[in-house]
Amino acid sequence: MKEINVGILGLGTVGTGIAKILINNGPLIASRLGAKLVLKKAADLYIDKDRGIYFDKDVLTTDPFEVVNDPKIDIILEMIGGQTIAKDLILKAIENGKHIVTANKALLSSQGGMLFKAAAEKGVTIAFEPSVGGCMPIIKTIRESLAGNNIQSISGILNGTCNYILSKITSEGVSFEDALAGAQTAGFAEADPTLDIEGYDTAHKLAILSSIAFGMEINLKDIYVEGITSISAMDIEFARQSGYRIKLLAITKFSENAVDARVHPTMIPLSNPLSHVDGSLNAVIISGDAVGDMMLYGHGAGMMPTASAAISDVIDIARSLINNSASFVPMQSFQVAQIRDIPFRSIDDISSCYYIRFSAKDQPGVLSKISGILGNHQISIKSVHQTEQKLNGAVPIMMLTHVAKEVEVKQALAKISSLDAITSKPVVIRIEG
Amino acid sequence: MKEINVGILGLGTVGTGIAKILINNGPLIASRLGAKLVLKKAADLYIDKDRGIYFDKDVLTTDPFEVVNDPKIDIILEMIGGQTIAKDLILKAIENGKHIVTANKALLSSQGGMLFKAAAEKGVTIAFEPSVGGCMPIIKTIRESLAGNNIQSISGILNGTCNYILSKITSEGVSFEDALAGAQTAGFAEADPTLDIEGYDTAHKLAILSSIAFGMEINLKDIYVEGITSISAMDIEFARQSGYRIKLLAITKFSENAVDARVHPTMIPLSNPLSHVDGSLNAVIISGDAVGDMMLYGHGAGMMPTASAAISDVIDIARSLINNSASFVPMQSFQVAQIRDIPFRSIDDISSCYYIRFSAKDQPGVLSKISGILGNHQISIKSVHQTEQKLNGAVPIMMLTHVAKEVEVKQALAKISSLDAITSKPVVIRIEG
Repeated sequence: MKEINVGILGLGTVGTGIAKILINNGPLIASRLGAKLVLKKAADLYIDKDRGIYFDKDVLTTDPFEVVNDPKIDIILEMIGGQTIAKDLILKAIENGKHIVTANKALLSSQGGMLFKAAAEKGVTIAFEPSVGGCMPIIKTIRESLAGNNIQSISGILNGTCNYILSKITSEGVSFEDALAGAQTAGFAEADPTLDIEGYDTAHKLAILSSIAFGMEINLKDIYVEGITSISAMDIEFARQSGYRIKLLAITKFSENAVDARVHPTMIPLSNPLSHVDGSLNAVIISGDAVGDMMLYGHGAGMMPTASAAISDVIDIARSLINNSASFVPMQSFQVAQIRDIPFRSIDDISSCYYIRFSAKDQPGVLSKISGILGNHQISIKSVHQTEQKLNGAVPIMMLTHVAKEVEVKQALAKISSLDAITSKPVVIRIEG
Repeated sequence: MKEINVGILGLGTVGTGIAKILINNGPLIASRLGAKLVLKKAADLYIDKDRGIYFDKDVLTTDPFEVVNDPKIDIILEMIGGQTIAKDLILKAIENGKHIVTANKALLSSQGGMLFKAAAEKGVTIAFEPSVGGCMPIIKTIRESLAGNNIQSISGILNGTCNYILSKITSEGVSFEDALAGAQTAGFAEADPTLDIEGYDTAHKLAILSSIAFGMEINLKDIYVEGITSISAMDIEFARQSGYRIKLLAITKFSENAVDARVHPTMIPLSNPLSHVDGSLNAVIISGDAVGDMMLYGHGAGMMPTASAAISDVIDIARSLINNSASFVPMQSFQVAQIRDIPFRSIDDISSCYYIRFSAKDQPGVLSKISGILGNHQISIKSVHQTEQKLNGAVPIMMLTHVAKEVEVKQALAKISSLDAITSKPVVIRIEG
């Protein structure tokens, strides 16, 4: 039986999961593929660590360049992550004619264009299913299953840490700080959770999805990003009582030759299936002109789910190698000549319904002033909720608006914030259907 | 630009949808594929019908054999369905060296083995993504995205008609007959709904999924099938009040070298994401040893969603044709030599929790007799619910059991049914987690 040799860079969580699948499910994979995937080399700084798997002699090395320079290896799995050595290793592997599978969303979202170009010139493939959504086949679904569709929008929960925190606050009413500490204890959040809770990790994934959905150059820097740190248990409880959930959503929409891509906390009604996605789970809804809305739902991170996605990429590449063919599917979904620079729409130019929470002094006339300013900016109020319960000595006033322009909301809130009766910056959460 | 010629057999709902995508989204598809898909011929008995699309001259014909015998056509879309002329047309097309895309679950589930063999001998592909789950990429996900996984089980809502009816009864408390009539008026149910409501359509799809998930010969006849006609609004209301929903599920599980495949009404708790899938929507949960549980969710039928799945198959085949290569992925997911005859487990051999509704005369001692017989068969009662409300003059007694053996339940219910105090056959619904 033909053998395809594979090398792994980085035996962290996902790298170890990949090794486990290659070793434990080897015969199963061969029965589907018709060839054997052989783990030829795996590089990690700590090769003596017990990972609960038996590696053949000579597989482990501390030198990643030994892996990318091994002439017997056909496919390299880059599982180091980040933007330090990973790029150099990928470029070296490409130079050596090897195919790449990577989960490195930070690198792809910032330098993917250059990497895809280098791979195309050398006639090799960079596959990246494990970079977005863990086990969910988002990349394959967009590039292959929806290839006959004009994709109109994608919205999803793409960060398990944020979803775990928001779910915990929703179900148990704990504070943001306590929920984050719980996520760290449970292993769902890093010691430094900035990349997750500030929304950057989600934005990396959204940049990749926008590119392959709409046929645009990868553009990370123009994505609007807001994290979840300003959301309080009070906002979440109000949402819950009003039949909504608050989720950190990645949203990208194409219309009138521009893309509206953003990451922010979002209020969604219970009729939106994303509202039922709790804990560290991820889900994504893709809307196309033929399929309507379809959803993928599963483990967006973790050792084995992400490793499963990486292995599916390896098997795809191996199928082409067995057939002495190039990969059939363009890396960025569209033919290279068709990929365009599509402009992003400024967040100021969107329209949305909004949830706004004001903190006001308990004095007469405040609501009249607020609603007057909103009215002057064509912001129509759908409902107002004011409780006796005070927060830091101020009265919270919660409002839901009808569709309004973001720029008007911004201007109105600047004016309202400068009122004497307003004690702190209003909290604003966009609402999606 | 290279052109790939396509022929459609049958311009019913899905066939028309395929023509629409080919014509309306042609340039988009070309920008992804790098070749043009050309609708060369389409056969239908009624070629003069207005389908809201413009066909080029000479495309339409009433003779389907004109399509399968056209030497210029590379890919045939069989959208006639059923087991009459479709098989002959597919075999003729294979004989002529053409690749096939079909949505014909009835044909594949009964004669797929023979058809795949004929295709393999001729070196052509039979693709069937549109045969199961409409727009959801179930086939691709199992064959490609989960190729590194031991697939352990699949459970899903695969029939929109049944789900529409059950959802309607759940949300509006209408009778089965009224819900069915509503489904027919809304266009979700056929004039003769037998294939749907008796569970056979779901079983056709389950036979296909079981085959590609576990590497087994397609086996329709050994699947246990129960439809939804015996479910009453009372059962659904009891389930709703107990935190459950009743869905017609397709379930297939592999363990100890046997497959447990069945279609029946199933009570599932609200924690199961399938419980939130309402109306005519479909969803499927696939469990693998690496991915854990993942779910696909979307329109399981209808013109454009099913056409989208068919087009994705056409594009996959076209990619291989452009590269002068065979298709990479084995039709039945496993290498032909690896496909086995895996036995099905008899329904008598399964274990499950059960909901049972007895109809009893309003007289003393009945509950004691029922529970005595259940106890003799090692069936442990979890909860009992008896209302004053009578149905056809009888008192309904609803029970939930702990895990019990199906064969014991069957024997116990036979004894209970023969009691004088029992007025009609007990209703039994299996419960899944």
